[in-house]
Amino acid sequence: MKLYSYWRSSCSYRVRIVLAHKGLDYEYVPVHLVKDGGQQNAPAFLEKNSLGQVPVLELNDGRRLTQSLAIMAYIEKSYAKPAMLPDDVLARALAWERIEIINAGIQPLQNIGLMKKVKALAPDTDMTAWARDVIATGFDALEPLLAETAETYAMGNDVTFVDALLVPQVYNARRFEVDMSKYPTIVRLDEACNELHAFQAAHPDAQPDAETA
Amino acid sequence: MKLYSYWRSSCSYRVRIVLAHKGLDYEYVPVHLVKDGGQQNAPAFLEKNSLGQVPVLELNDGRRLTQSLAIMAYIEKSYAKPAMLPDDVLARALAWERIEIINAGIQPLQNIGLMKKVKALAPDTDMTAWARDVIATGFDALEPLLAETAETYAMGNDVTFVDALLVPQVYNARRFEVDMSKYPTIVRLDEACNELHAFQAAHPDAQPDAETA
Repeated sequence: MKLYSYWRSSCSYRVRIVLAHKGLDYEYVPVHLVKDGGQQNAPAFLEKNSLGQVPVLELNDGRRLTQSLAIMAYIEKSYAKPAMLPDDVLARALAWERIEIINAGIQPLQNIGLMKKVKALAPDTDMTAWARDVIATGFDALEPLLAETAETYAMGNDVTFVDALLVPQVYNARRFEVDMSKYPTIVRLDEACNELHAFQAAHPDAQPDAETA
Repeated sequence: MKLYSYWRSSCSYRVRIVLAHKGLDYEYVPVHLVKDGGQQNAPAFLEKNSLGQVPVLELNDGRRLTQSLAIMAYIEKSYAKPAMLPDDVLARALAWERIEIINAGIQPLQNIGLMKKVKALAPDTDMTAWARDVIATGFDALEPLLAETAETYAMGNDVTFVDALLVPQVYNARRFEVDMSKYPTIVRLDEACNELHAFQAAHPDAQPDAETA
């Protein structure tokens, strides 16, 4: 499999965590989201994903999948062990609730594409403050929900998709200087995950296209 | 079950479609997103969902679920027939790809909360044009993907979650005056779905809190 990825893209980071946690090998293809006006907007890449977004997973038969959660759901179905979604119906629904708060409720609102659009309309806007505010609003809701379900990891003692979304979102929160002292459960879960080899291997700084500041 | 809903909320509309398609009864509890400064922001509602969003599904045991896709996934697991996700691994991944393009790629960017934020920063912005642009960008990507998988419905000859997300997004597209002539597959799928009783029962205009223009 080939993963089109950018080291700092939180949606690519999610997929890298899942691939690493399942012990799956893949070829890493970097797509630089800033250089050359964004390589994701080049015609060759738009053929792979007309939305111009990473990640894209190219399967061995050449078929391509876009959208991080679709890729993750595909991997979960194709490589069942270790399972990354709870089996119990209600626990699984609670996992999806936490996933979607990040996936649809936070990430799209601090995505670089949206932030560029807002900045163009209102050039005086402090976009770091914008992102910080969006993430804090989401974390305010997420913290008590996670406190209800968390043990070592977000949904108990097994790593799930919730952890695979949470850790990249915390990485972004730190980039945008969110005050994390308000979120003890989130901080604790992030630390527990980052002790695992899979999360270390998937970290932006461990990618071939990582840049030093 | 109780569904906290607003007639025009596209995320509530998705859940109503799934409940109707599965033939499930529920109590409809209207939450007016505009009146009284938004009833979703009242303390009594924030207890149910601290993000101040509909839909919320309250189960018979009093437990609550938020996030439309989490609610839909719960219903799918609890009431398996008729199935609303393809069984085949790849088809299911393609379904999730289409779902997430709408769920994370379009809807959050034309959500009323975000649009209010942008309008506050850039008061001269034509927010109808903003929403139209966001939806058109998403539909530009979705149209060829749907053309690949569609038969009568988005993923073949059975109604799936993809249809349950697509129809409410088309409803919003029409509200925001998107030029639908560019999307023949999307228009055809929307028409096919709207011939079904479940989609008619779930339509905004058929809800107890519907308002006439």
